[in-house]
Amino acid sequence: MRALYFDEELSYRPDAPDPAPPPGEALIRTRLAGICNTDLEIMRGYLGFTGVLGHEFVGEVVRADDAPDLVGRRVVGEINAYCGVCPTCRRGDPTHCPNRTTLGIDRRDGTMADYFTLPLHLLYPVPPSIPDEWAVFTEPVAAACEIIEQVAIRPTDRVIVLGDGKLGLLVAQVLGLTGCDLLAVGRHLDKLAILERRGIRIQLAGDEIPPGADVVVEATGNAEGFAAARSLVRPRGTLVLKSTFHGDVSLDLSMVVVDEVTIVGSRCGPFPAALRLLEGRLLDVEPLIQETCSLEDGLVAFGRAAASGVLKVLLTT
Amino acid sequence: MRALYFDEELSYRPDAPDPAPPPGEALIRTRLAGICNTDLEIMRGYLGFTGVLGHEFVGEVVRADDAPDLVGRRVVGEINAYCGVCPTCRRGDPTHCPNRTTLGIDRRDGTMADYFTLPLHLLYPVPPSIPDEWAVFTEPVAAACEIIEQVAIRPTDRVIVLGDGKLGLLVAQVLGLTGCDLLAVGRHLDKLAILERRGIRIQLAGDEIPPGADVVVEATGNAEGFAAARSLVRPRGTLVLKSTFHGDVSLDLSMVVVDEVTIVGSRCGPFPAALRLLEGRLLDVEPLIQETCSLEDGLVAFGRAAASGVLKVLLTT
Repeated sequence: MRALYFDEELSYRPDAPDPAPPPGEALIRTRLAGICNTDLEIMRGYLGFTGVLGHEFVGEVVRADDAPDLVGRRVVGEINAYCGVCPTCRRGDPTHCPNRTTLGIDRRDGTMADYFTLPLHLLYPVPPSIPDEWAVFTEPVAAACEIIEQVAIRPTDRVIVLGDGKLGLLVAQVLGLTGCDLLAVGRHLDKLAILERRGIRIQLAGDEIPPGADVVVEATGNAEGFAAARSLVRPRGTLVLKSTFHGDVSLDLSMVVVDEVTIVGSRCGPFPAALRLLEGRLLDVEPLIQETCSLEDGLVAFGRAAASGVLKVLLTT
Repeated sequence: MRALYFDEELSYRPDAPDPAPPPGEALIRTRLAGICNTDLEIMRGYLGFTGVLGHEFVGEVVRADDAPDLVGRRVVGEINAYCGVCPTCRRGDPTHCPNRTTLGIDRRDGTMADYFTLPLHLLYPVPPSIPDEWAVFTEPVAAACEIIEQVAIRPTDRVIVLGDGKLGLLVAQVLGLTGCDLLAVGRHLDKLAILERRGIRIQLAGDEIPPGADVVVEATGNAEGFAAARSLVRPRGTLVLKSTFHGDVSLDLSMVVVDEVTIVGSRCGPFPAALRLLEGRLLDVEPLIQETCSLEDGLVAFGRAAASGVLKVLLTT
């Protein structure tokens, strides 16, 4: 099969071996895969991954020996393949299972190929009313939903989302659904306009932002964003970190103590909630699609996705 | 009056001017004052304070024009003199009032003197059954209580307290009251023995500590302590920061995101709760007293308090 393979550098392989699903897993044909910032960070050394890249997808089940009803169904899927029996899984935190492999991120080949495999219990059939171009956003929409899974955001809260990249635009849209007093801050007026059309207040980074927000979400993907987020959150407020990036950040912890700030790391989220929001047309994801490339043009697609200000680049098989 | 005054360096002043209480404040005679790590950090430049040092005290009200019943009463007091009218105060967060002054820490002369003043509404009469040597610990005990005000610690939680300094020993004792599975880690067996006598498990730093704690409290007062705390908390666990110290810390924020760790800064706490714990003899604070010095010997006392492994040094007037 065709695949985008990362081993210290990215290569297109026209003749990668077809995967064989182990017991309990489905063989899935990729319909669309999305390039995420995490993929770009992996190319900078994040987590030391080797294998087929990709964790965002909408696909079609082509084989599922333990669940024949799934064959032919259009599915999305969670990315953490957990063991289900360790204390972490039994506590209800399977996305943190220490034995997990992660699709296209950690010891599990990903979705940027003709085929890949995933455990059956991670798959969610896609309602017919959700087109492929929406469904491929289920994973990042779920990651945005994780914030409201972790932090109670009240309609009276003043909330700032920093970052108008792919994830920032989804986070702002999801948080906007709470009715909170939301301000989205970014560097690109054309991207912020996607939010403005949905009634979300926007502002360019660099213009003065009134501090004292109840909740600030850091989704810029860089260390400067963290410092800005820290300065905008009120005492006893909450700072949500959504960005993973390669490298350390220098931080005055004393001021976190003095201001009694809560910092919440936030990663993968609930797929059923994300599918409900997409099915209800409560989010607008199509303007986030920058372009769609074929798998063969994967290296060009990654070059495009890494350029400043570029939104979601999709790969089609 | 006599006072310990800090202005880039600490000096003993035998003839400092007596303070005059403004309307709404009481004039208090210091009976005992405690030297806290924050005092030592101020001497290293923390917050740039100039004035009479000291925020831990038990005293006697000698003048209170607006509350004559208080005169002659033995009192302890909260240290943040807030405005009461700003949005932060009205939200219920007066200890974070942006207009606040802080006793012996920020633009308000402190307790290491014959007399000082404090707003009446910050004062709490001390029950007769609590001796001075216990009452002087009310402020740090309240700071320890702040952790359980902020974080729900369950009896089934595995909790680690890092640091066997003055605050660490109080934090461990307060958290031990929840029935949680507690481990106190420090560098001094003699100090840890105070906890061991109360049935708290102890361990020397440097020996291997099993990771995966639900809650880790960082009370070491140094950057290495933070790194250790980070490595011991489980995914989706909570890391409580109690130390304020001068300087930045380098931090891999991506791992906070991946593990969805919550970091909670924790500072001043509830005085009534602290007094209840002291009155109920639920804590053992007397072994924390290293020695008691007179105010005149304040410079010697600070030298003692700054030495490694020294616990609470008290000043008597």
